Amino acid sequence: MELLITAGGTSEPIDQVRSITNHSSGGLGKMIADQFLQANHTVTYVTTKQALRPQPHKRLSIKEIETTADLAQQLTTLFQEKQFDSIIHCMAVSDFTSETAITEADFIQELAQNLATTVDTQTPTDIAAAIKNTLNDIGTRPQKEQKISSSTERLLLFLKKNPKIIAMIRQQQPETILVGFKLLVNVPKAELLNVAMTTLVQNQCDFVFANDLHYVHAIDHQGYLLHKDGTVTPAQTKQAIAETIWRNVEQVWRSKK
Amino acid sequence: MELLITAGGTSEPIDQVRSITNHSSGGLGKMIADQFLQANHTVTYVTTKQALRPQPHKRLSIKEIETTADLAQQLTTLFQEKQFDSIIHCMAVSDFTSETAITEADFIQELAQNLATTVDTQTPTDIAAAIKNTLNDIGTRPQKEQKISSSTERLLLFLKKNPKIIAMIRQQQPETILVGFKLLVNVPKAELLNVAMTTLVQNQCDFVFANDLHYVHAIDHQGYLLHKDGTVTPAQTKQAIAETIWRNVEQVWRSKK
Repeated sequence: MELLITAGGTSEPIDQVRSITNHSSGGLGKMIADQFLQANHTVTYVTTKQALRPQPHKRLSIKEIETTADLAQQLTTLFQEKQFDSIIHCMAVSDFTSETAITEADFIQELAQNLATTVDTQTPTDIAAAIKNTLNDIGTRPQKEQKISSSTERLLLFLKKNPKIIAMIRQQQPETILVGFKLLVNVPKAELLNVAMTTLVQNQCDFVFANDLHYVHAIDHQGYLLHKDGTVTPAQTKQAIAETIWRNVEQVWRSKK
Repeated sequence: MELLITAGGTSEPIDQVRSITNHSSGGLGKMIADQFLQANHTVTYVTTKQALRPQPHKRLSIKEIETTADLAQQLTTLFQEKQFDSIIHCMAVSDFTSETAITEADFIQELAQNLATTVDTQTPTDIAAAIKNTLNDIGTRPQKEQKISSSTERLLLFLKKNPKIIAMIRQQQPETILVGFKLLVNVPKAELLNVAMTTLVQNQCDFVFANDLHYVHAIDHQGYLLHKDGTVTPAQTKQAIAETIWRNVEQVWRSKK
């Protein structure tokens, strides 16, 4: 099988010395890759600088990325080269990228000015529209400083939503066996499974692995592999998760041949 | 000599899965520590998980921290235990910590409401005051979600200024030989030296090492050691910086004995 595995956590620069980073050791992705390599499959592994790596292997090739935009570009390139039999998308992708930062004082000044000019017509709707326009103006303005100044008591950071990588994967690789991941924090199991099922349906995944940060540790790692027929396979360790994903993906792949 | 060296970059959590991280390999701090250990001094080394470490040594003890608040607490504990002959504060400390995150829609709704209630008295000053109050309300409100939802096109992240660690060091260790660091990005040399001299004077440093990210690489690392008498010693590599700092600190220490 030709596999693509993404793992680790992307970072989005705020300025030249700071980033917003999604935490992910890459430990689970590494184990999944090791498992498939051991079973004689070929793995293209897209990961980040800080993340753990699979064991070196002749059928393993590694691509390093940093931001969500890097990831989108790298995947598009890979998808132009080949069809993957399966894509296992464990990477913790930044939902947001930094637009700009503005000091509280500059923000208040600019917004107060914009609101004062529309003072004659101020219905709540007008006020909301004026605020929205100001936020758009500020958000889409290029950041001036290469290192944000620390001379303010409060800084407002504008973040805009990144495109959903998993949706892009499914669009560009319609035939692949797609495994998505959903990580929530401290939610009831029923909610976790519901949210994961929504992810599965929305992105036409074959499987989604659902887990709660509260139960994620270096070796022990509790979670549930959701199948698209609604079956749920629980797992208690990273090793068990890697084996469960491997067995299930291989089974779907065999049934498709 | 009893030395305290801080190195690496602090991180400030935004929620349970994301942080704002200050980039710093810790490579320079490591070399400075190695240099002082080699010269028979004793080093307490405060650093972060991701940063490079000095060579293991019987006179080296390492303390790990993550956030600026952790750092402040760790230093206060250390300062209660002993007086350090010299403190070399290379750590890239986050200037800001995350207060809260709010979706653009929630922000507009709340602000428009607050502005609408004061509509009768709307001079520009009133508007500015109403905006300021709303920002304070939002900023100081505890974050509800443990993982920020991605269901918004724009997210506003409120950041508040951290206390200046270098000022705290000087206050709690008035006798120590204090070396500060100033990193700017793409500025003329004169500006870099001016800003570094301001840092030196404000925090009563004995030395400040001034550098520009544009000239910072793994081995080559251009910068200037400012002495409090205004002397400037240039250096071109991390090794040369470590040696320059060691020689100068040792000289001041000998002259004080």
